[in-house]
Amino acid sequence: MSKELTSREADYSQWYNDLVIKGGLADYSAVRGCMVIKPYGFTLWENMRDVLDKKFKQTGHVNAYFPLLIPKSFLSKEAAHIEGFATECAVVTHYRLKSDPNGGGMIVDPEAKLEEELIIRPTSETIIWNTYKTWIQSYRDLPILVNQWANVVRWEMRTRLFLRTAEFLWQEGHTAHATPQEAIDETKQMLEVYAEFAEKYMAMPVIKGVKTANERFAGAVDTYTIEALMQDGKALQSGTSHFLGQNFAKAFDVKFASKEGVEEYVWATSWGVSTRLIGALIMAHSDDDGLIIPPKIAPFHVVLIPFLQKNVEERTAIEAKTKEIKTALEEKGIRVMLDMDDSKRPGFKFAEYELKGIPVRIVIGPRDLANGVVEVARRDTKEKSLVQLEGLEQTITQLLDDIQENIYQKALKFRDDSITKVDTWDEFISVLDGKAGFILAHWDGTSETETKIKELTKATIRCIPLDNPLEDGKCILTGKPSIQRVLFARAY
Amino acid sequence: MSKELTSREADYSQWYNDLVIKGGLADYSAVRGCMVIKPYGFTLWENMRDVLDKKFKQTGHVNAYFPLLIPKSFLSKEAAHIEGFATECAVVTHYRLKSDPNGGGMIVDPEAKLEEELIIRPTSETIIWNTYKTWIQSYRDLPILVNQWANVVRWEMRTRLFLRTAEFLWQEGHTAHATPQEAIDETKQMLEVYAEFAEKYMAMPVIKGVKTANERFAGAVDTYTIEALMQDGKALQSGTSHFLGQNFAKAFDVKFASKEGVEEYVWATSWGVSTRLIGALIMAHSDDDGLIIPPKIAPFHVVLIPFLQKNVEERTAIEAKTKEIKTALEEKGIRVMLDMDDSKRPGFKFAEYELKGIPVRIVIGPRDLANGVVEVARRDTKEKSLVQLEGLEQTITQLLDDIQENIYQKALKFRDDSITKVDTWDEFISVLDGKAGFILAHWDGTSETETKIKELTKATIRCIPLDNPLEDGKCILTGKPSIQRVLFARAY
Repeated sequence: MSKELTSREADYSQWYNDLVIKGGLADYSAVRGCMVIKPYGFTLWENMRDVLDKKFKQTGHVNAYFPLLIPKSFLSKEAAHIEGFATECAVVTHYRLKSDPNGGGMIVDPEAKLEEELIIRPTSETIIWNTYKTWIQSYRDLPILVNQWANVVRWEMRTRLFLRTAEFLWQEGHTAHATPQEAIDETKQMLEVYAEFAEKYMAMPVIKGVKTANERFAGAVDTYTIEALMQDGKALQSGTSHFLGQNFAKAFDVKFASKEGVEEYVWATSWGVSTRLIGALIMAHSDDDGLIIPPKIAPFHVVLIPFLQKNVEERTAIEAKTKEIKTALEEKGIRVMLDMDDSKRPGFKFAEYELKGIPVRIVIGPRDLANGVVEVARRDTKEKSLVQLEGLEQTITQLLDDIQENIYQKALKFRDDSITKVDTWDEFISVLDGKAGFILAHWDGTSETETKIKELTKATIRCIPLDNPLEDGKCILTGKPSIQRVLFARAY
Repeated sequence: MSKELTSREADYSQWYNDLVIKGGLADYSAVRGCMVIKPYGFTLWENMRDVLDKKFKQTGHVNAYFPLLIPKSFLSKEAAHIEGFATECAVVTHYRLKSDPNGGGMIVDPEAKLEEELIIRPTSETIIWNTYKTWIQSYRDLPILVNQWANVVRWEMRTRLFLRTAEFLWQEGHTAHATPQEAIDETKQMLEVYAEFAEKYMAMPVIKGVKTANERFAGAVDTYTIEALMQDGKALQSGTSHFLGQNFAKAFDVKFASKEGVEEYVWATSWGVSTRLIGALIMAHSDDDGLIIPPKIAPFHVVLIPFLQKNVEERTAIEAKTKEIKTALEEKGIRVMLDMDDSKRPGFKFAEYELKGIPVRIVIGPRDLANGVVEVARRDTKEKSLVQLEGLEQTITQLLDDIQENIYQKALKFRDDSITKVDTWDEFISVLDGKAGFILAHWDGTSETETKIKELTKATIRCIPLDNPLEDGKCILTGKPSIQRVLFARAY
């Protein structure tokens, strides 16, 4: 097969699209900005979702489900919130079609106009806090620790598969607390859950930090974020956790009677990650031959390819041995794809599974079989070796761990090598337009300066890293005094 | 606690609503016809979903995800399909809000009108078959065995929690095949999967059959169904599996090159079950004291209630023993809820967990502890007994199996006792208005007669049971010849 993949150097953006589409993860749909997540891509999402869901439950959360449609008036109740989402709202105005009396096919029935328009949720704070109002009376009803797996719609003008789509899948946690400290602790706890998931499962190092006012979630008091670095030197916001203060409680009048019998507004958090993570995963690890997927979340760990012979006896022996190997691997929890299709050449198959990023390939040939070995190739380094059939399951289990670790270390080294400290505007521009990556630089702390820098360079402050060291300096743009460096980058 | 539940006899419909709302499964939302699925109800749905998802995967299916929004023109391409769904469509017409220049808050921006309206999927055949067109070229691309877990919207005029809501959660399988036989086999296979799930997991006996033309899915050649019986003698369609013939392939021009190189239209199936099943579950088993949930899908199997004493020494001993029991049960895969809240009376708690339908209650008191026993009560029969602490896990595991079987047998007996053969119109009316249930009666096979019977009695033909015995008779309404009895009932 000729995969005809664009290389990263030739066109990074086209390389990314090629991997998504030719790798079988997703495809464009007939609906502007919406994608079809294909089975291979969806299995990847299921694996990620299952790990996260388990972590949410281990930290005391339960799942629930709230309506897709939000009355327009709800969305408008929190001022910053509606300002942030108004321009991206898909609006339902009617509830019926009818035959055009003039013969023009089906038309929207003008008599079926809704009294109040409904918005397809771009996020669910408003409908959920309107519900919490009925769930919360006293401190005994707190905390509420709820998560929802759902689809949301944000009418983005420029869309990209996984990274920015009009509809996407995500989870959104929405918690309610009696004290601000408890809510802040929850916000930080969920940031840790995300960071651990990104690093341990996606093999993707992240920098944890807090957003500046300019980059905050619409309606939050503080937005915490994990920021990852892509191979083109651009940052990607990979998950956010918001301390919402009492903003939504006030907007929806949600109060509780404290132990002392005092009525107080409830404290809130929300936090989410989305199918955007799949875009991050692709761009963090993959190469010019296709996807590289960390074993812990890979749809398949191993592809098993027997060399089927024309000779019936040999063929039968290899088929039997292949199935035996498959069973032995699966018993150890290894996810195996078996490819017995002999209408395709081995070279074609090898390229196909490299493209799909299956971490390990095992090839079984008659000569190897006679010697009690199989050929094992790893996707990340392309190394091949002959491995004893005896104890193969243990060898592969260990190999998968090694691959997971190797992918992480490679991404970590790249990320660490891509953090540059700069002290002047010229250096800042030179790094941005050169090696790119994360830039640690002084900033005078004002929204105006941040906006100006963004206008001039398209770079934004990704975050103020947690536990950032304080250090006197001068803002790279204005020269005004600064107490700490912040993390700049151009971003997706 | 006074649960204040309405009894079935007093008001069956109110009894149902009480159980859903007071049992903590779901609640009304601020959006007309849409519900909030609360954590306890959602956990029940997760348990059902996980079993079904496993069965779908075991039968070779994979999950994928298709867009929520469908262009109006797509929905119109299959004539019967659009006719079936036109009056229930939620229509998106705009993609932006803006501030009212006249100071009236947020309004829909008239300049952000979509060129073509988008419909929130009421079901996904059209968007999926438009996608399959790009996936299918040759017989090598077939079969496609895809399932989707999703939310759908059907703008129903009269809604009821779980049973009929404007938005609901479901799965929809959409498969593509090279031959009609293969598609029919798939349709029947998935009906079996649903029937087995209903009976083995939901403990709900069902009758498998095929729908008449009047009751067929909009766009199907044949609709297979599983029909369950509720305690008020009404039927509830619990799952359907459709053989779609080439209807959608023709509407979306999806052809494949056969082995012989001939271009043919692809054959299709679709099949689905929804959160409606939770409504069925409630009405099949529950009683005047609350929910009865079969152990195999229950959110919790056991609630553990220690009698905490004022005396510190006793209290500590009971707490320690309680946690020990919890761990021992959980190690056997038993889902345990622990209630250590001593601000509520035992009687209140007992009533609460009866309402919630937790299959087994274990009470641990100081005297029992001294005797090496605990008090075990089962929800289905309300029987209580003292059980040895030694080997408690095995006893409870066995008890859960017994409860599962007992719930099923009870529902089976009720269902079997509720099937009546009638031969005359008078008998038909008398049974319908009396004991109700399923009625096996002769019908002349015409849509007109079926429609007439529905108008006169609100009873419909639920299905023609699979393997129905042929038997000469006369239609109960028209007296015309009939070759078999069909299954009538009033239905949800």
